Amino acid sequence: MGSRSLPIIVAKPMIQGTAEYEANRLPLFAAISSNIPEEWYLPQELFDNPPKNVSNIPSTCGLLSAEELEITEKHDATSLAEAIAARQYSAVTVIKAFIKRAAIAHQLVRCLTQFFPKDALEQATKLDEHLTTTGKTVGPLHGVPVSIKEHMAIAGQSSSFGELSTTFSDDKDCLMVAILRKAGAVFYCKTNQPQAIMHMDCSSHFGRTLNPYNIYLTCGGSSGGEGALIGMKGSVLGVGSDIGGSIRAPAAYCGIYGYKPTSNMLPMQGMLRGAMPAELNILAATGPMGRSLRDMNLMTRVVIEADPFLVDPKIIPTVWKGLQDPIKRRLKVGIMENDGFIEPQPPVKRALAWARKLLSDPKNSEIIEVKDFQQYKAEDAFRKVSRMFIPDGGAGIIEAIESSGEPVLPLTRALIPDNAKMSNAVEVSDMRFERDTFRTEYVAAWNAQDVDVVIGPCYVGPAPAHDTARYWTYTSFWNFVDHPGLVFPTPIKAELGEKYAEDYKPLSEECKQVKELWDGGDFEGAPVNLQINARKYHDNQLFGALAVLKDVLSLA
Amino acid sequence: MGSRSLPIIVAKPMIQGTAEYEANRLPLFAAISSNIPEEWYLPQELFDNPPKNVSNIPSTCGLLSAEELEITEKHDATSLAEAIAARQYSAVTVIKAFIKRAAIAHQLVRCLTQFFPKDALEQATKLDEHLTTTGKTVGPLHGVPVSIKEHMAIAGQSSSFGELSTTFSDDKDCLMVAILRKAGAVFYCKTNQPQAIMHMDCSSHFGRTLNPYNIYLTCGGSSGGEGALIGMKGSVLGVGSDIGGSIRAPAAYCGIYGYKPTSNMLPMQGMLRGAMPAELNILAATGPMGRSLRDMNLMTRVVIEADPFLVDPKIIPTVWKGLQDPIKRRLKVGIMENDGFIEPQPPVKRALAWARKLLSDPKNSEIIEVKDFQQYKAEDAFRKVSRMFIPDGGAGIIEAIESSGEPVLPLTRALIPDNAKMSNAVEVSDMRFERDTFRTEYVAAWNAQDVDVVIGPCYVGPAPAHDTARYWTYTSFWNFVDHPGLVFPTPIKAELGEKYAEDYKPLSEECKQVKELWDGGDFEGAPVNLQINARKYHDNQLFGALAVLKDVLSLA
Repeated sequence: MGSRSLPIIVAKPMIQGTAEYEANRLPLFAAISSNIPEEWYLPQELFDNPPKNVSNIPSTCGLLSAEELEITEKHDATSLAEAIAARQYSAVTVIKAFIKRAAIAHQLVRCLTQFFPKDALEQATKLDEHLTTTGKTVGPLHGVPVSIKEHMAIAGQSSSFGELSTTFSDDKDCLMVAILRKAGAVFYCKTNQPQAIMHMDCSSHFGRTLNPYNIYLTCGGSSGGEGALIGMKGSVLGVGSDIGGSIRAPAAYCGIYGYKPTSNMLPMQGMLRGAMPAELNILAATGPMGRSLRDMNLMTRVVIEADPFLVDPKIIPTVWKGLQDPIKRRLKVGIMENDGFIEPQPPVKRALAWARKLLSDPKNSEIIEVKDFQQYKAEDAFRKVSRMFIPDGGAGIIEAIESSGEPVLPLTRALIPDNAKMSNAVEVSDMRFERDTFRTEYVAAWNAQDVDVVIGPCYVGPAPAHDTARYWTYTSFWNFVDHPGLVFPTPIKAELGEKYAEDYKPLSEECKQVKELWDGGDFEGAPVNLQINARKYHDNQLFGALAVLKDVLSLA
Repeated sequence: MGSRSLPIIVAKPMIQGTAEYEANRLPLFAAISSNIPEEWYLPQELFDNPPKNVSNIPSTCGLLSAEELEITEKHDATSLAEAIAARQYSAVTVIKAFIKRAAIAHQLVRCLTQFFPKDALEQATKLDEHLTTTGKTVGPLHGVPVSIKEHMAIAGQSSSFGELSTTFSDDKDCLMVAILRKAGAVFYCKTNQPQAIMHMDCSSHFGRTLNPYNIYLTCGGSSGGEGALIGMKGSVLGVGSDIGGSIRAPAAYCGIYGYKPTSNMLPMQGMLRGAMPAELNILAATGPMGRSLRDMNLMTRVVIEADPFLVDPKIIPTVWKGLQDPIKRRLKVGIMENDGFIEPQPPVKRALAWARKLLSDPKNSEIIEVKDFQQYKAEDAFRKVSRMFIPDGGAGIIEAIESSGEPVLPLTRALIPDNAKMSNAVEVSDMRFERDTFRTEYVAAWNAQDVDVVIGPCYVGPAPAHDTARYWTYTSFWNFVDHPGLVFPTPIKAELGEKYAEDYKPLSEECKQVKELWDGGDFEGAPVNLQINARKYHDNQLFGALAVLKDVLSLA
């Protein structure tokens, strides 16, 4: 009897590339499969007729022991770190549980790009020895498994810019990974990102990653592998990056926490081997994705307290107070029902109503003042940012894709309009001035509304169907103005049959398209998150506000 | 008897433009003259046969009263503010003294571009009324005259990018001016800057500004009018801007204090009406120029405490501690004798020896550790930054100059090499990556030498002769890595007959040129400053170090 090859659910096939391309990417898949023993394979019937919602399969499939289920399901990173430090679990026991669960998750949602259990076990073994020998942890993340987005360098692994042709073998950790490693984090996998790392979807030369709650929807992107893996509880804490919503969208689509800091708060040094022209106009940010607000705080604190500015001159030295420093006066919370450009789909409206009700509860009126927040020129910002993402007209991206015979995916085409062209230095300089002028107008608009934070949608709806995530106004706006944002889960999930309000009137052409997608789609079971944003560089204040809102909104 | 026209010393005539250009700039001169009464004109013989050093003429010419001399000579901004608040002088008395002294200074060094005594008197009168009526000052700069570099918008005045064609009438204060105005500063003049605001010299369509201590030398640039006017004590405090040394060089050449913060510490909003392509690669910074270290601290504190980040989203919110927070542990001071690229001229070496002696005095060994600091790849940085200043190949500058018939000055030509060309977005993006890679190497080089601050030259020599200031390695380096820097006066002045060391060997072609300029020049009487630099974003720590060094180096 020949052995089965690693089964993986395919909810929607991808466009094929050239024969050469298809052959050249097989070793990438084999490298993952070779680290997944056949006894962890899920039964074939699951692949022949997959359920829409695969999120519970790891807990019901019988492959994970009671302890493995406890480790992977009952903890966030904070409590796992505590449990390991208290010797409740060894680092080896913990990483073994996550390795197995990640292997199962990968069969269900195809979230992994590199998988290196042997390295992870070696790392965990050394950590256990250290704790046994010295009685001390190496740092605040001692033994905590951390998953890493594909483009971020881990020594000994490969990375890419989201194209097969840009695959590169790294011999050095990027700074973020180096800091986390020093703090005790254990690395065992890297996770999928879309072509060119520029979709709010997650299809690449590694394949298409699915949404755990509805496999016919996207897990989001670009940090989509992180969203899906953490959503499947195959990781407890991950590192994403975000230039238009790439942490927040997949976190929102997969019902987890995700935090995009203001640019240059957390280090991106070594995360990309070369320049990214989009960053001429919009700076990317890296940040945590995970299961709890306190884990967002934990990773941020650990990284900032490592003084990354001593190694990465882009980093602005910061004293992190975060959740430990709640805002003491009455918190002014703006609620954004829509951005004046695209009315969100019905479940997002329900989530906003849920939040508004809790925040407006008279018992909270001494600590919270709720205001209606009007977004400033969102459509204008959407047009501007879409153009500013490709100051080079996208030529480099297309070349990097096609050079290996890789097919240009529909969302890549959508990113690069037909009239896109290479800008010259003066045009780029003028674009930046235009951006800065908008930002200046924006702070005035924010000041006029006098709020500390704004709560609003993460996206125009819950996770959209594959290849349709084009309406990133609710995230890219905050990159355009470079404000920090954190997305958090709500109890709301999309239901069948939800309808737009009777008096709905489209706010724009895109607004109409979004309604059509809702009316014609099936989003059942998709989680709905909300987003909270603060002023630029007010990351500490964002967490100070969340320290106040945590109990009101029952955040984990 | 016909009236004389305003006499102004001409030490070196400028290249003429077209007849139309020459005619079109006459009104600019007339606007200044019309505000200078003939009784303030200096005697004609002074202009027929000017002395080399004109710095003392305001005090000896007999035009200023004893009180006016006291006001303009015996105070810094801090003590003037105190004296006005204590009603020792009225704001009107103070501004009148500075108006008269500036009018005298202009005849000697041609430092003014706009002169508006009537507005200033009106502003001062209102401040006096406020103090009389309320018993309170409007803010910490109540009644303090502040001079402003030409490109910075003051409502009701004109500004330019350093070309006649870019002259513009401003209807709004730039943010820096607005903050200072609110704090009580009185504006009475704007000051000269060079063509394109990009020379370390000060010749523009407003004419050539001279060095107070030796009129055959440049006052420096681009904030050269500030340097000259403050050097003449026609201003007590001014605002400059610096992208390659434009605060520090003129401050150094004129023997005053000047502070270039890290970028985005102090607001430049509204200082230029459009984008400056150089800022694609190197961010400019604005900062104070004046008579004392404590005034550098005062202006910085006043501006930061006005929360400029609420209006200008580029600004990084900072808590200013500055001089009030001296570094408590033993301070590690690196001394840079040369940067490995250009050996400084003899008086700069003397100034370094002066500083080394004081810092190394055994009585300071408990608070100061002196180290030799080796600059990292200064020649490489010089080549890179020179190229990065003109990502557009300089086309815009040349067009702006020539469109009015203005002549392209030699230092503008020198700025734009023959092979300069317009870069495209990818090339700019790659240039920025190259810059960031250098910065990353640089922090490692700094870390390896383990210093808090570095003391070194401000320029390769004291003020150079007109049209020769091309060797900006000691300032532009710090813009390239974006570290803060402050220049301070020493007791050293250039003397006749000073020679290079016997064993001098040129470090580079430029090093040889600098020696030739010294050997063939006359720098007698030119002041020599030194520069102190700290890590990027360590502006507070720079002042914390200066709080320790202040008494050791007898800083004002």
